[in-house]
Amino acid sequence: MADRQLKLGFILHGVGPGWDDWRHPDAQVDASTSLPFYVRQAQAAERGKFDYLFVADSVSINARSSPHYLNRFEPLTILSAVAAVTDRIGLVATSTVSYNEPFNLARQFASLDHLSGGRAGWNVVTSWLAGSADNYGKAEHLGHAERYRLADEYLDVVKGLWDSWEDDALVRDKASGQFLNADKLHELGHKGEFLSVKGPLNISRSPQGQPVIFQAGSSEDGRTFAARHAEAIFTHQEDLAEGQAFYADLKARARGFGRDPEKLFILPGARPVVGSTEEEAERLHGELAGLVSLENALRALGRSFNDHNFSQYDPDGAFPAHVAEEGRKSNQSASEKVLAAAAQGLTLGQIALRVATPKGGFVGTPEQLADRFQLWLEKRGSDGFNLFESLPGQLEVFVDQVVPILQQRGIYKQDYAGKTFRENLGLDVPVNRNTAARLTRSAA
Amino acid sequence: MADRQLKLGFILHGVGPGWDDWRHPDAQVDASTSLPFYVRQAQAAERGKFDYLFVADSVSINARSSPHYLNRFEPLTILSAVAAVTDRIGLVATSTVSYNEPFNLARQFASLDHLSGGRAGWNVVTSWLAGSADNYGKAEHLGHAERYRLADEYLDVVKGLWDSWEDDALVRDKASGQFLNADKLHELGHKGEFLSVKGPLNISRSPQGQPVIFQAGSSEDGRTFAARHAEAIFTHQEDLAEGQAFYADLKARARGFGRDPEKLFILPGARPVVGSTEEEAERLHGELAGLVSLENALRALGRSFNDHNFSQYDPDGAFPAHVAEEGRKSNQSASEKVLAAAAQGLTLGQIALRVATPKGGFVGTPEQLADRFQLWLEKRGSDGFNLFESLPGQLEVFVDQVVPILQQRGIYKQDYAGKTFRENLGLDVPVNRNTAARLTRSAA
Repeated sequence: MADRQLKLGFILHGVGPGWDDWRHPDAQVDASTSLPFYVRQAQAAERGKFDYLFVADSVSINARSSPHYLNRFEPLTILSAVAAVTDRIGLVATSTVSYNEPFNLARQFASLDHLSGGRAGWNVVTSWLAGSADNYGKAEHLGHAERYRLADEYLDVVKGLWDSWEDDALVRDKASGQFLNADKLHELGHKGEFLSVKGPLNISRSPQGQPVIFQAGSSEDGRTFAARHAEAIFTHQEDLAEGQAFYADLKARARGFGRDPEKLFILPGARPVVGSTEEEAERLHGELAGLVSLENALRALGRSFNDHNFSQYDPDGAFPAHVAEEGRKSNQSASEKVLAAAAQGLTLGQIALRVATPKGGFVGTPEQLADRFQLWLEKRGSDGFNLFESLPGQLEVFVDQVVPILQQRGIYKQDYAGKTFRENLGLDVPVNRNTAARLTRSAA
Repeated sequence: MADRQLKLGFILHGVGPGWDDWRHPDAQVDASTSLPFYVRQAQAAERGKFDYLFVADSVSINARSSPHYLNRFEPLTILSAVAAVTDRIGLVATSTVSYNEPFNLARQFASLDHLSGGRAGWNVVTSWLAGSADNYGKAEHLGHAERYRLADEYLDVVKGLWDSWEDDALVRDKASGQFLNADKLHELGHKGEFLSVKGPLNISRSPQGQPVIFQAGSSEDGRTFAARHAEAIFTHQEDLAEGQAFYADLKARARGFGRDPEKLFILPGARPVVGSTEEEAERLHGELAGLVSLENALRALGRSFNDHNFSQYDPDGAFPAHVAEEGRKSNQSASEKVLAAAAQGLTLGQIALRVATPKGGFVGTPEQLADRFQLWLEKRGSDGFNLFESLPGQLEVFVDQVVPILQQRGIYKQDYAGKTFRENLGLDVPVNRNTAARLTRSAA
């Protein structure tokens, strides 16, 4: 067995990440709010020993939003439901620090961690589309740098709440009648730039101590934040060299914060299309690409650029440069990818269609897919992948045909190593700050 | 079969509602964060055709909090998990309007309603214990009247968000490529005294249109709020005459708001202790009462009075009158009950112990319990009950021994009438305000 094992996540996304995916003949059109659909996918991913399920999120829509954003389950509720019918797979919910009370968020994640037997993960997001603030009575969005300052403080508060109970605070001794050891329950007493939270949390420390922290932004501030706090990064490189550069940068930054870089997993998104032959795989990818209209591809592109209206430009012309500049403020990574494609001479329409149905080298036979995954792992382009289901049924195909090859090659686990998500990822339970302080005091 | 059928709810409360319940020899001490414990109880209640499961809540604790408050699941996450392993039983989660963003709350309840196939209920609370505001960076608690003004506005916003999608807004026609009928997706555009929320909600209208609204306060403002908005009221009368007075008052108030009073269910809490003989039942109740120490009974009493420290008084003396006055501000119903007991000449200690292990006439044989329930139903003291499990195993005893008698008497359903909670309660799906407006416009 290889030293480093490939980590795999599966993104539960209902009708599919592409604008027109729902039009596929086999697509279930109401998938986004169907518990049976989610359970079927979750159980298939668990059969394939996937490390985790991932639910993305956003908090505002309008009539121009894509089917996938428009109507979907809220992450914490759907993952709580999925927890009850799965056993070992991690459950990563996206939640924003901008519009959730930290006490509520800390509590719901701790609750999910308890009820899942230690399988919760939190994908921390700060960047939202224009319009979100209006759903929360906020005058406006914070600026990019300010958002990350809030995120730093927020994370400290949430971790502090998770630590407000020491592991052995609950005595629960029937004979003596002592339920709680009050010395091991701690107020947080936080008063900072953005937040003021007293604590303690009203749920005990959960099996993982703290849910696993994911992060998904790749701007400069996002990278710093991830290197400091995250245990896994959901990223978007499609090219190995690009992946390697990102990988090396993030691992170096983590080292810079005194962290073990092997405890920060870099996980690009991938949308594999598996066929029994190369031709079949290409035909299937063609089915997928054929679903997308230019109009919707342009709208999808707009979503990464503050809901910009790209239909006003000639699709056979160049990508409008001033828009890319604007986009850097809201979604830096999308913007950079588009600029790179424009530099290659692609037209606006070509860029939109490419973004709508990325190939990313993940179209091929099971052997080819396994080769590709192995290459990225061994060349340190990533530590694994975050998989989207490209076409209905592809998750099952992947589990039945690609996973066994990865296992045979010794780069993917035969079974889960433990019970909790942290155990399965090889991550330690974070030291409880209050226990640490107690030990320091008693040593002094 | 009788006209009116008894409604039954079961309160999922982990270690039990009494301070020392966890010390019972058969009690599972870690029940409050055990999914298997919750699932076992949920499935037993569903076997007994209970109308709903109920999860109470609070948002602040300290080292003096009772075991039941101290450490427990967050309601929406645990009920989402329970939803995945039950089929027909309603799922009522308590959430406060004081410390949740209405967009998040509306969304999580809609998500629960979708994933449960239409079984969500929301117990709207406004009144919280001292200390809560500190967990949310708020300077202080709103006053009683202001809280209910906020609750009115909040409910209107949440219902407006639930209505932001008309029932048939999602077209999802693969042939034409139309996913959404944008004319049937509506912004809310609310700007009021307390809240400002644009909408629309990012999840479509759920199977019940709107989750069932519960309410649990019985102050003057609470009654008005309930009569206006609630479809079920969780109340606390133990004496039939008291129950009848409350019942008549609330039904009259509902009529005053132009509502059908039969669509507002009055459901007092009850903690039945069932024995095969009266003696066995009394012995079991004695076991329960014997678990409570005077010290904890006084602490439990304090919780209803702004965390007042009752241990400073002589337990054999009278209930301190000035404290009752203070208590009226935070928990009017508890305060009135205590004042009534004091007027009967009970000492502080006696009052504390009585409050800690109420009998309420629900101690007896299965026949006696059925008699009691039937009496309350027929005399219109209530429309049913919200049951606590008094001692470990009593839920199963109730389901196996009391439910069949109620069914034989024709005052309790043989099976669920429909799929959704509303269908099972005989409540209509609320008319969507945007659909109503459209119909009015097209008629004009």
